[in-house]
Amino acid sequence: MNTVNLDAKFAKFSEHWSPKILAQLNEFHIKAVKVRGEFLWHSHPETDELFFVHKGTLTIRLRDRDVALKAGEMFVVPKGVEHMPVADEECEILLIEPAGTPNTGDAGGERTATEAWI
Amino acid sequence: MNTVNLDAKFAKFSEHWSPKILAQLNEFHIKAVKVRGEFLWHSHPETDELFFVHKGTLTIRLRDRDVALKAGEMFVVPKGVEHMPVADEECEILLIEPAGTPNTGDAGGERTATEAWI
Repeated sequence: MNTVNLDAKFAKFSEHWSPKILAQLNEFHIKAVKVRGEFLWHSHPETDELFFVHKGTLTIRLRDRDVALKAGEMFVVPKGVEHMPVADEECEILLIEPAGTPNTGDAGGERTATEAWI
Repeated sequence: MNTVNLDAKFAKFSEHWSPKILAQLNEFHIKAVKVRGEFLWHSHPETDELFFVHKGTLTIRLRDRDVALKAGEMFVVPKGVEHMPVADEECEILLIEPAGTPNTGDAGGERTATEAWI
């Protein structure tokens, strides 16, 4: 039961595409992620995934369109829907999804992050 | 699959203590709430509840301490823990909890809100 200050948490790390766990809500984790550049196409077959932009701008590419998000905006990628997050400049986002959801989803591979609390 | 802009959503209503549903994430709802004044002591016996302050300042009274939150800060009230939200000035917050979680929890009564999407 600690207060989580987003700016303070984001100031504690610099790696991109490496989610840090901020809080647990039942079986869900709230994660802070810094992103820049392209990630990879993947989906989460078992769960929806919420993206919330804290700072900067994020594009979530879907197979049929791009979703552009700026600070103060959120978007839920439904389970099973392929997506690729992209950010031209560094962007700070929150992810909300069940604990243990891998960042690379069904794609796996070397960009799969080991998540830790921060 | 719509983008949710928090400022635009909060501009659409003025009532206090009346959660509006912004998004669904699996079985969870993300809700926007404007608060001012005191709510009431209650708990949610079945679920944790996440508070995130979008604008203003919020105090979450617990039986053993007060938790002060400002914009950009979040706090998870664990399931079963009694709490009372209080705001001297109007404050805009997000709540994240399972769909159907009543705002008054185990207390019930006339301040129980009927929730609708916005």
